[in-house]
Amino acid sequence: MNSGLNFLVAARQCEIGELEQLARTGELVGVISRFTHELQRERGISNLFLGAQGKRFGKQLASQVAECRQLERDVRQHFARLDTDAIRVRNGARLFSRIAVVLHALDGLAGLRHRIATQALTPGDSTEAFSRLISGLLAVVFEAADSASDPAITRALVAMFNFMQGKEFAGQERAFGVAIFASGYIDTTRQHHWRHLVESQEACFQVFSDFADAAIRADVQASQDIAVLNELERLRRAGFSIGSGGRTDPGMTQAWYDCCTRRIDAMKAVEDSIVLHLRQLCERKIAQARTELRDHQTILDALTRQASAAPASTTAAYGPNLERSVVGMLQEQSRRLQVMSDELDTVRTALNERKTIERAKGLLMAHRQLSEQDAYKMLRRTAMNQKRRLIDVAEAVLAMSDMLPRNAL
Amino acid sequence: MNSGLNFLVAARQCEIGELEQLARTGELVGVISRFTHELQRERGISNLFLGAQGKRFGKQLASQVAECRQLERDVRQHFARLDTDAIRVRNGARLFSRIAVVLHALDGLAGLRHRIATQALTPGDSTEAFSRLISGLLAVVFEAADSASDPAITRALVAMFNFMQGKEFAGQERAFGVAIFASGYIDTTRQHHWRHLVESQEACFQVFSDFADAAIRADVQASQDIAVLNELERLRRAGFSIGSGGRTDPGMTQAWYDCCTRRIDAMKAVEDSIVLHLRQLCERKIAQARTELRDHQTILDALTRQASAAPASTTAAYGPNLERSVVGMLQEQSRRLQVMSDELDTVRTALNERKTIERAKGLLMAHRQLSEQDAYKMLRRTAMNQKRRLIDVAEAVLAMSDMLPRNAL
Repeated sequence: MNSGLNFLVAARQCEIGELEQLARTGELVGVISRFTHELQRERGISNLFLGAQGKRFGKQLASQVAECRQLERDVRQHFARLDTDAIRVRNGARLFSRIAVVLHALDGLAGLRHRIATQALTPGDSTEAFSRLISGLLAVVFEAADSASDPAITRALVAMFNFMQGKEFAGQERAFGVAIFASGYIDTTRQHHWRHLVESQEACFQVFSDFADAAIRADVQASQDIAVLNELERLRRAGFSIGSGGRTDPGMTQAWYDCCTRRIDAMKAVEDSIVLHLRQLCERKIAQARTELRDHQTILDALTRQASAAPASTTAAYGPNLERSVVGMLQEQSRRLQVMSDELDTVRTALNERKTIERAKGLLMAHRQLSEQDAYKMLRRTAMNQKRRLIDVAEAVLAMSDMLPRNAL
Repeated sequence: MNSGLNFLVAARQCEIGELEQLARTGELVGVISRFTHELQRERGISNLFLGAQGKRFGKQLASQVAECRQLERDVRQHFARLDTDAIRVRNGARLFSRIAVVLHALDGLAGLRHRIATQALTPGDSTEAFSRLISGLLAVVFEAADSASDPAITRALVAMFNFMQGKEFAGQERAFGVAIFASGYIDTTRQHHWRHLVESQEACFQVFSDFADAAIRADVQASQDIAVLNELERLRRAGFSIGSGGRTDPGMTQAWYDCCTRRIDAMKAVEDSIVLHLRQLCERKIAQARTELRDHQTILDALTRQASAAPASTTAAYGPNLERSVVGMLQEQSRRLQVMSDELDTVRTALNERKTIERAKGLLMAHRQLSEQDAYKMLRRTAMNQKRRLIDVAEAVLAMSDMLPRNAL
């Protein structure tokens, strides 16, 4: 008779199941955050090592590689744990495909390190290889944010993803600047690229601010050391105006690395509090959903007792008071899901900017037979040349798509 | 070593799992389509019965009720089957909440029939009670369409949902017209409502055409009997110009009911072929995904054998040829998911119109303490009074929302 209420309970159980999965995803994001941080540092030290023709920084690099290896094991373990309950993972097809890409890149890491140790590649190529791996790791975080069904958690994940992406641009700037200072040379293309890295950081941190909790925003504010920022600005100016005349002071390269590292390490502390916040949020939501489920269950039991005691009636299954409480529960649930769905729509628009860029990339891949990387490079180069934002170029590419020949895909 | 490829296989398995679930959802949609059709007919006959003050149509109504009872059992069984693997159902929280609402309405059906049999309610109230139940059933179909992750299947489900919704407006028009012809009276408000029902049908069938397969569209074309449509237009004109002077010819009421029923029954035949198309589509997709999974597995096995035979290398895990095939598989998978995601985005915009209306309804519920039904009525009344489309009114309501006081939700 009260079969409707059984489904209300089942709906709640589904919600709890999804929240528990989000909590596990949150853990995975935390592990990826730690690994990414150490990889970013390895990328920077590798450029110091390559810039010094392997004469310095060898020991520092070796100890950083050991640190990364340890964290790689953690990440692989977390991936493997996901695999065990494959079917239950929301958005599994996309998430697992991203993980496959990361694992393949990880398998190539030993080879990359070998080429760095033997100085068989340029700082630019090394930076690009590390950046590709990190971009794969961030794509896993993005899929996690994209699949969450709870608006508050989605909001936290969107903030987290954008913070990580902003920090990654800061990390790329560190490695790029190391190469510039070590070579003592800069040209217009490199100046454009540097500016692009700075602007990309700002864009990400803006989205982060829009979505982060007030407490987290305050953490960011508190973590900013004005002396470090001033030093960063000074060094940026120095880097931008480096002449074409040979090497600069090697102390300058080290100063740049140290200044960037202080800033990025402070960002890592913020990231840790976002991860903590995310975990607490999941725990709170799960506890709340469980309490509400128990309340539903109590009413359900009362109704079952009453329905079996009362004679069958042709008009209503329960007395008027209980009937009202059933209708109330159904309405409350509908209203709550509606509110959640609205909030989710709002948060998701923030994810759309990234999706637009992905879509433009896909279009270029299909129509111009480009690899994913080359398509992205083409977008980025166009943005840099035309001094437009990446998202504007992506939108322009999509707007043109009707004029391109249809492909077979 | 080839752990990346294991995840590629897991991603495929997730896809297959989702497709299988979609196939089950397709069955549920088929059962709901059949039940809805018979409920629509019961709604029409109930109005014939009430319009004739219970003097005629009693036997026809009794046999229709029996038919509906049989199909209600089918629907309940399908719902119960869903419940058993609750956790695995995608979009479970929303889907189950919708089902809870339907089951509660079904529990009240016996009471509604009793009131009809004893002529204790007006044709208008009877129409509204049936329409509410059917709207709940269509909401289940909507959630199914909203949760599908395959673009072709989503497309088919969006077409299906809009066709069912259009047919439901045709059913409401049938019941409404019966009440008008039986009473021999129409006023401006009722004329507006009638026009609204006609326009709503056209809007739904337009979205249907935009999303349906060419073969299905041809079925629709073939199913249209020009004589029936001409008769419908003639009767609509007659209904619109009924004077306020007492009863009309009772033959007219019967003619209207028969003409609408011929049209709606033809729609049902189309719906059946959409359901069949959906089932075949799911089967094809599942078969294709299984073949591709087997291919992946074969390459994976070959790589495992080769990796265990070859000596450990610091540069690459496989020889250059196999390395290329691994990279190719990863790129192909990324590209395929990207294309699917783009297509899905396109299809989903069609679902957004409905969501906008839902959101506007939610806003009115929260700010004006209205029930869901009253909020919808307010939107519809405003649309009718201002002669604007429902979606335009909904968008206007949302645009105003910043000016409304924030509520505690």
